[in-house]
Amino acid sequence: MSYARQMLDTYPHALDVDADALAVTIDAVNDCAQACAADTDADLSEQNLADMVECIRLCLHCADICTATAGVLSRPASSDAMVTRPLLEACAAICKTCGDECERHAHMHEHCRVCAEACRRCERACREFLGAMK
Amino acid sequence: MSYARQMLDTYPHALDVDADALAVTIDAVNDCAQACAADTDADLSEQNLADMVECIRLCLHCADICTATAGVLSRPASSDAMVTRPLLEACAAICKTCGDECERHAHMHEHCRVCAEACRRCERACREFLGAMK
Amino acid sequence: MSYARQMLDTYPHALDVDADALAVTIDAVNDCAQACAADTDADLSEQNLADMVECIRLCLHCADICTATAGVLSRPASSDAMVTRPLLEACAAICKTCGDECERHAHMHEHCRVCAEACRRCERACREFLGAMK
Amino acid sequence: MSYARQMLDTYPHALDVDADALAVTIDAVNDCAQACAADTDADLSEQNLADMVECIRLCLHCADICTATAGVLSRPASSDAMVTRPLLEACAAICKTCGDECERHAHMHEHCRVCAEACRRCERACREFLGAMK
Repeated sequence: MSYARQMLDTYPHALDVDADALAVTIDAVNDCAQACAADTDADLSEQNLADMVECIRLCLHCADICTATAGVLSRPASSDAMVTRPLLEACAAICKTCGDECERHAHMHEHCRVCAEACRRCERACREFLGAMK
Repeated sequence: MSYARQMLDTYPHALDVDADALAVTIDAVNDCAQACAADTDADLSEQNLADMVECIRLCLHCADICTATAGVLSRPASSDAMVTRPLLEACAAICKTCGDECERHAHMHEHCRVCAEACRRCERACREFLGAMK
Repeated sequence: MSYARQMLDTYPHALDVDADALAVTIDAVNDCAQACAADTDADLSEQNLADMVECIRLCLHCADICTATAGVLSRPASSDAMVTRPLLEACAAICKTCGDECERHAHMHEHCRVCAEACRRCERACREFLGAMK
Repeated sequence: MSYARQMLDTYPHALDVDADALAVTIDAVNDCAQACAADTDADLSEQNLADMVECIRLCLHCADICTATAGVLSRPASSDAMVTRPLLEACAAICKTCGDECERHAHMHEHCRVCAEACRRCERACREFLGAMK
């Protein structure tokens, strides 16, 4: 069981969202932040470096936004849809763009295939969480 | 001159936004992240601790979102309105909420007055930047 | 398999450290950052708030240092012991202090028990990684 | 006056370090994090991209460590030399390495000149703060 799940299971404050969906989303944004951080460094090691520039840039944005999203979702007590909704929309949007770019390189670079998968999973989790908020 | 300004003045890539407005916004989100990080610790030192809980929570969210926004705005080459717009909206929203809460304590705690001002300035910068994007 | 592990398994650059130990350490610092972020919010929800102040403060420090350590370890290509060693020492030190403080509250607050365990595991991973570096 | 300075001037908790030195150091690490974040994106825009790889990698490490250092220094109430000292040593070390690498490119790229200066200033502030701690 992930630490996000364990912490939510022992959380002393009432949650106004589904704990399962929240745990899945926190895990997905953390995984995506990790994959993107690692992928920038992997991209920088490739021979076709000029082709990887956009991938590096998008991974950096994606890691930053996923990290902020993880922080906000991990402290759900003062959750506010006016903040959480656009943040999740930004997160889903960068995961879509970054996932598309990583996928373009997936046939050549295994690390981009893994990172694309993390982006897809994170985008899906953010969109499902957004759907459940409405 | 701030480092955000100096870095933009020497930036080798074309910008599709106004460099002045971008520098002002990056400075404002960095200042706000700093004020909010410091304000959590100051709040935790106050006698009326139970009254400060919401302020601490909002400052933590605000610092996280401002930090991500600073990162994304500081790497403008692969700027994408589908990402930047909701991110700035989330940033303006948390700065509004956090600024309101800090202002409630401003008459008692000088550090909340300073933090409220940083939040107001950041909210304004984000909204002006959003306005200029449209 | 964690994303840290998957990304290292597909990493195109030579590693001068053991990939298994590196993956374990990255997972441990990420888990600890997550547990500490969630624990600040859980602590802020408790009735005995004044007793939780030190725990909140240490969790905030611990989350920040673990996040930086995760970032640096996830980009191992330009690893430099002059940087990595003190960073891991800082990480082990804050995990020790934060784990001790969380453990003090573990009998009352389950979330502190979970967070203490994440801190212990992270401290151990950092120290083992430091030991292997020498 | 920087927000770090204003927040320290209104800080309700006793400081066991000099407030001036602390404010200077927080400003320096924040400036360096900002310069390094911007420099990665600027580096990625350069024609001699293969020569910039090490600079990008070091800037990413430097930004991460400076961000964590800013967070920890901005919450001085539970300051602990066992944590702060190695963290500042890691920060000074990466600023030295990153500053050296940026300086190598300073004659060709103005953004690297600015970033090198931010790294130098940050390294100096960290070392002076470390000296004052002993």
